[in-house]
Amino acid sequence: VSIITLLTDFGTADHFAGAMKGVILSINPKAVIVDITHEIPPQDIAAGAFTLLAAHSNFPTGTIHVAVVDPGVGSTRRPIVVSAGDHLFVGPDNGLFTYLYMRYVNHDYKIFHLTASQYFRESVSNTFHGRDIFAPVAAALSNGVKPSSLGEQIRGGQIRLPVREEPTIIHIDHFGNLITDIADRAFPKGVSLAVNGRAITTFRRFYGEAIGAADEPFVIAGSAGLLEIAVNGGSAARVLGVKRGDPVEILT
Amino acid sequence: VSIITLLTDFGTADHFAGAMKGVILSINPKAVIVDITHEIPPQDIAAGAFTLLAAHSNFPTGTIHVAVVDPGVGSTRRPIVVSAGDHLFVGPDNGLFTYLYMRYVNHDYKIFHLTASQYFRESVSNTFHGRDIFAPVAAALSNGVKPSSLGEQIRGGQIRLPVREEPTIIHIDHFGNLITDIADRAFPKGVSLAVNGRAITTFRRFYGEAIGAADEPFVIAGSAGLLEIAVNGGSAARVLGVKRGDPVEILT
Amino acid sequence: VSIITLLTDFGTADHFAGAMKGVILSINPKAVIVDITHEIPPQDIAAGAFTLLAAHSNFPTGTIHVAVVDPGVGSTRRPIVVSAGDHLFVGPDNGLFTYLYMRYVNHDYKIFHLTASQYFRESVSNTFHGRDIFAPVAAALSNGVKPSSLGEQIRGGQIRLPVREEPTIIHIDHFGNLITDIADRAFPKGVSLAVNGRAITTFRRFYGEAIGAADEPFVIAGSAGLLEIAVNGGSAARVLGVKRGDPVEILT
Repeated sequence: VSIITLLTDFGTADHFAGAMKGVILSINPKAVIVDITHEIPPQDIAAGAFTLLAAHSNFPTGTIHVAVVDPGVGSTRRPIVVSAGDHLFVGPDNGLFTYLYMRYVNHDYKIFHLTASQYFRESVSNTFHGRDIFAPVAAALSNGVKPSSLGEQIRGGQIRLPVREEPTIIHIDHFGNLITDIADRAFPKGVSLAVNGRAITTFRRFYGEAIGAADEPFVIAGSAGLLEIAVNGGSAARVLGVKRGDPVEILT
Repeated sequence: VSIITLLTDFGTADHFAGAMKGVILSINPKAVIVDITHEIPPQDIAAGAFTLLAAHSNFPTGTIHVAVVDPGVGSTRRPIVVSAGDHLFVGPDNGLFTYLYMRYVNHDYKIFHLTASQYFRESVSNTFHGRDIFAPVAAALSNGVKPSSLGEQIRGGQIRLPVREEPTIIHIDHFGNLITDIADRAFPKGVSLAVNGRAITTFRRFYGEAIGAADEPFVIAGSAGLLEIAVNGGSAARVLGVKRGDPVEILT
Repeated sequence: VSIITLLTDFGTADHFAGAMKGVILSINPKAVIVDITHEIPPQDIAAGAFTLLAAHSNFPTGTIHVAVVDPGVGSTRRPIVVSAGDHLFVGPDNGLFTYLYMRYVNHDYKIFHLTASQYFRESVSNTFHGRDIFAPVAAALSNGVKPSSLGEQIRGGQIRLPVREEPTIIHIDHFGNLITDIADRAFPKGVSLAVNGRAITTFRRFYGEAIGAADEPFVIAGSAGLLEIAVNGGSAARVLGVKRGDPVEILT
């Protein structure tokens, strides 16, 4: 079974996601296509990068992940395929794979520049590489084409999102939870954090745990393997006045 | 073919639904996964219970339905599997299966407490049992594991939503239609109802039937096999000032 | 492999789309079901017609497309199946297939009135033909039933949306891009257009091309094979004060 996941900012109201699926099934009718989401905020590469990181590792090895958050479509930004952690990732070289490069830094990931246009749609538009390049390339990979057949290996120079050296809020989910880039396994007994000048000293094991008042922020080990800051029945982002990219302090 | 349906309140913007699908496909790559919805209003167990009731019976016997509207995740509420009407249902014991217990009251349904942790994800978080317990258990069931192998049978004591003895508005759909718990087959020639002190004496066979003015409420036999109250091109809930749980009177 | 696509205005919050999928899988468990969208604006036949046109041609020949935007459900409007361009289309005869009739005008498309009720759901409601007629008919087609077995051929008299003779804005997508009914291949070197009394003389090859200021409209060859009018990072519909159905002038 060949699984191909889709992650885009296309929304689900227009024909875009459907068109990608049609292209894939035209090339590999046996592909199993799974939507991760099409609701990445428009052109928000960092949100796409986090969601791809959090979702991909639940899939079996060999899964092919197509990620398209692509404000530079049609320009000179490179289309690439990344082989990392026994998964394949197809999309634009614009930072979307930043957190994968970090996750697999010790695993010898490989990046290839997609130039073998015989695997692209016959006619490539300048506006819809999701349909015209990334979907057909993913389908070709699912049919057994090797990443190394798709173009030259890129050895350095891939685009990364700017990443702070200090701990950071890397994502705010649609509940308003603040996801940090701090691995929870480093703090098996809990930890206190500070953001925006405020210390958060309550650590909870699960959301429903009845400690403290509404709107009281707490630290929790989130499902992506990262520490999160949440509030009871509300948005931590709003309560704490925090935005993505803000620094986090680990209190000892 | 093993069909697994998903019904959650996770939304489709984050990685949650995708993560559940990845876990299922990791355990049973041949499972056919069908989204019923991920847009149950957050933590609205009653809305989830109605939607599960209305959707499940359209699927073939043997279908496995995963339902996760789970405000008590990580607490002591029990994870369960329910065998009813030749379908299997996997989710939390918090009332989500109330209408199924009512529908299958004469069919000897069985409930099992999920305790066989060898079928869970290796590491179970306190925040995401959809991924860590319910998805892998559903995949195990689709691979042929018997419900009775998953834990002890529960004989009474399962959680139910409070249900009025008199007829009730049990759901308001996103068009604002009021769904009652009155089976339409009891009234083959139509019926008049009253809600919120107002009699609704017009019965329509279909929505487009051109009777009466805009905003005039009417009774209709809805697609879930239950009587509904609707208005022409608007929200019956707003026009009539009715909310879920309000009583309905059957006028003779 | 039998592919069945779904395009509706049902939204994804209720059980409606899930019910259609359950019915299809009950009749053909091997059908591959693909959502195009369930977010056509309620009862907006023209939006459904465009989205179906834009999506369908990406799917392999033999695909069965179910389209349900059906304000007249339960009335005398005819359920039909259209065979065109080696695809099959199932839905109401209310204009939803207008652009397909235009696209395949020289290809001898055929239309059949769905009357063979043995292929319908055993009990047909007056409110949900998506589940009760269109889904089971699509499943029957995927099992090899011929369109000609489903009812009499309709020779003329099918419903079409009113179509202007002059070029027209036929769709506004959810980014606010204006899609015309002018085939881009007629203008390989670009073209200037005028809408609402304003000339748009900039032609861009792709959205990201850095020409002009924000809010400056430009013409672009869109991914549906039609000319579009867009603005940099905004809604062309709002900037230009244009609505669907407005005429477009081709400037020479």
